[in-house]
Amino acid sequence: MPELRKDPVVGRWVIISTERSRRPTNFTAGSHTKSGGFCPFCPGNEDKTPPEVYAIRPEGGVANGPGWSVRVVPNKFPALQIEGGLDRRGEGLYDRMNGVGAHEVIIESPDHDAELADLPAEHIRDVLLAYRERMLDLNGDRRLRYVLIFKNHGAAAGATLEHTHSQLIATPIIPRVLQEELEGSRRYFELKERCVFCDVVHQETEDGNGRRVVGMTDGFVALEPFAPRFPFETWILPRRHDAAFHSTDDPANEYLELAGLLRDTLRRLNQALDRPPYNFVLHTSPVSDGDLEYFHWHIEIMPHLTNVAGFEMGSGFHINPTPPEDAAQYLRQITVEEAGGGAR
Amino acid sequence: MPELRKDPVVGRWVIISTERSRRPTNFTAGSHTKSGGFCPFCPGNEDKTPPEVYAIRPEGGVANGPGWSVRVVPNKFPALQIEGGLDRRGEGLYDRMNGVGAHEVIIESPDHDAELADLPAEHIRDVLLAYRERMLDLNGDRRLRYVLIFKNHGAAAGATLEHTHSQLIATPIIPRVLQEELEGSRRYFELKERCVFCDVVHQETEDGNGRRVVGMTDGFVALEPFAPRFPFETWILPRRHDAAFHSTDDPANEYLELAGLLRDTLRRLNQALDRPPYNFVLHTSPVSDGDLEYFHWHIEIMPHLTNVAGFEMGSGFHINPTPPEDAAQYLRQITVEEAGGGAR
Repeated sequence: MPELRKDPVVGRWVIISTERSRRPTNFTAGSHTKSGGFCPFCPGNEDKTPPEVYAIRPEGGVANGPGWSVRVVPNKFPALQIEGGLDRRGEGLYDRMNGVGAHEVIIESPDHDAELADLPAEHIRDVLLAYRERMLDLNGDRRLRYVLIFKNHGAAAGATLEHTHSQLIATPIIPRVLQEELEGSRRYFELKERCVFCDVVHQETEDGNGRRVVGMTDGFVALEPFAPRFPFETWILPRRHDAAFHSTDDPANEYLELAGLLRDTLRRLNQALDRPPYNFVLHTSPVSDGDLEYFHWHIEIMPHLTNVAGFEMGSGFHINPTPPEDAAQYLRQITVEEAGGGAR
Repeated sequence: MPELRKDPVVGRWVIISTERSRRPTNFTAGSHTKSGGFCPFCPGNEDKTPPEVYAIRPEGGVANGPGWSVRVVPNKFPALQIEGGLDRRGEGLYDRMNGVGAHEVIIESPDHDAELADLPAEHIRDVLLAYRERMLDLNGDRRLRYVLIFKNHGAAAGATLEHTHSQLIATPIIPRVLQEELEGSRRYFELKERCVFCDVVHQETEDGNGRRVVGMTDGFVALEPFAPRFPFETWILPRRHDAAFHSTDDPANEYLELAGLLRDTLRRLNQALDRPPYNFVLHTSPVSDGDLEYFHWHIEIMPHLTNVAGFEMGSGFHINPTPPEDAAQYLRQITVEEAGGGAR
């Protein structure tokens, strides 16, 4: 059983994963994405993954057979385990609980060689709809506090399978960075009665500004944050206040607009940086928290251009060699080779 | 001029480094350690670095000439700049200040092919003495709040020059991770009137325990922390309460004992993990804070065995595939090829 353990000084929870247990000799010099050979995510191999928990089948078809455009399955080597109780307990001054949670894979396309940025906006919209369905479904599990959705693209960014996919980890604790954002934005709201992200969006998009804006639609903006940790770190936010990614009355249309801007942004990054490895993480309020007035969901895209040294991990102090104003300018100047669904 | 910028949501400061400014085409697929060719850290090339700020010359000799065993120089491409005022200012809701600070390189040996772990304990002691001298000297600068000392070993861990060295960054803000540790340990002290690190040391070393202990001397212990972020993450702590690395009455002897355990620990990691890239970061109280009763200095060693995916950066949530009890057992079983100065 995997375990969640809490650092007694700073309160950081980590997953000690036993399913993926590795001895010293199991660590190779670098990670490699499996390429060529058998792919469990390809159509026809549906029986090589755990049974699907969600799928979009435009032309119909049976579960765990071909015909899907987006398919969600439990991770075969999950970092957390869905069965069992939390069994919270102490060990002297330490705190631990069972590693209960969900770990799922969102297979974004049946096409083994596709890349998210190259899919049509309508298809990316369907990926976003799958995110939402899984969040809403897992919200029913009272043991879980947060549903984290993220994508590792490319071996250097942590992807271990080539076939394009995102991941979902649902946890009985709120991930640290999200907790810090929730606390920081609540403090700001207490001080000013305004959402800090709304203030950021206003300041970045108001007349005469826009130096850090990469792209914009009616409802969304892609921008380089003022204090980015990484070169070309890019955030996409709704322009109007909205705490939760899932809380839309019109997901089909809203997500299509978002998909267009996400696609356009990823394509700009791809062209500017020669198809870099990247990660993105969806930051949204805890599903059970409802419509917080102080939080504002967004997507953080982090191209993997420099080695994050343990120094930066160990100090929390990032040195970024590319001012965000420069990065935004490069990205705006890109001519996206094909119209990207609604982006300016 | 480099700039310090603060994220308005979570309050994280980043260095936007202009000296090292990089355009999209400047990012290569990975980082490489320069190997072969000219080395500015080798004896005879002293004029190729900025003038030294400290050196140990066992047989005497003139500044900026050969004959040194440890040499400290300002970084030629500093992330921060030592001249100038902080010039704190706002921009709408954002906060920034000039990137004032020191960025120095501690060249650990004149031997280009040496590795810290392979140096004699007495030599490693001298490296630690150099750390201390620089901390005490920079403490005189009222603009600076923290002196961070760290080592990147190997290209994958962020080292850009092969010749063995550590780095020092002195900053007008306290790095985030240190701030969190200071706050966390202060809260614990308020609750219990005890130092949390002392409690950790007691619990880990008391009779019948020791499952996470890697090595021990009279004054120091090397252990795998209860909730490690990384496989084989190893901490070295003084066994008795001590807030500040520099606050010793007998640095020559205390640091020799520490050097022996550090050397032994690095050699165990080297043998277990086939000389992995690694980072270490010295966590100590802010120099100006004096003897805090709630904080406890220590060294955190992080072998670089897995890619830290943006997911982990973006969520603060780490998945560690090696339980620390297993890691400690592997490391204890290693027969260190040569006696390592006092370690058990």
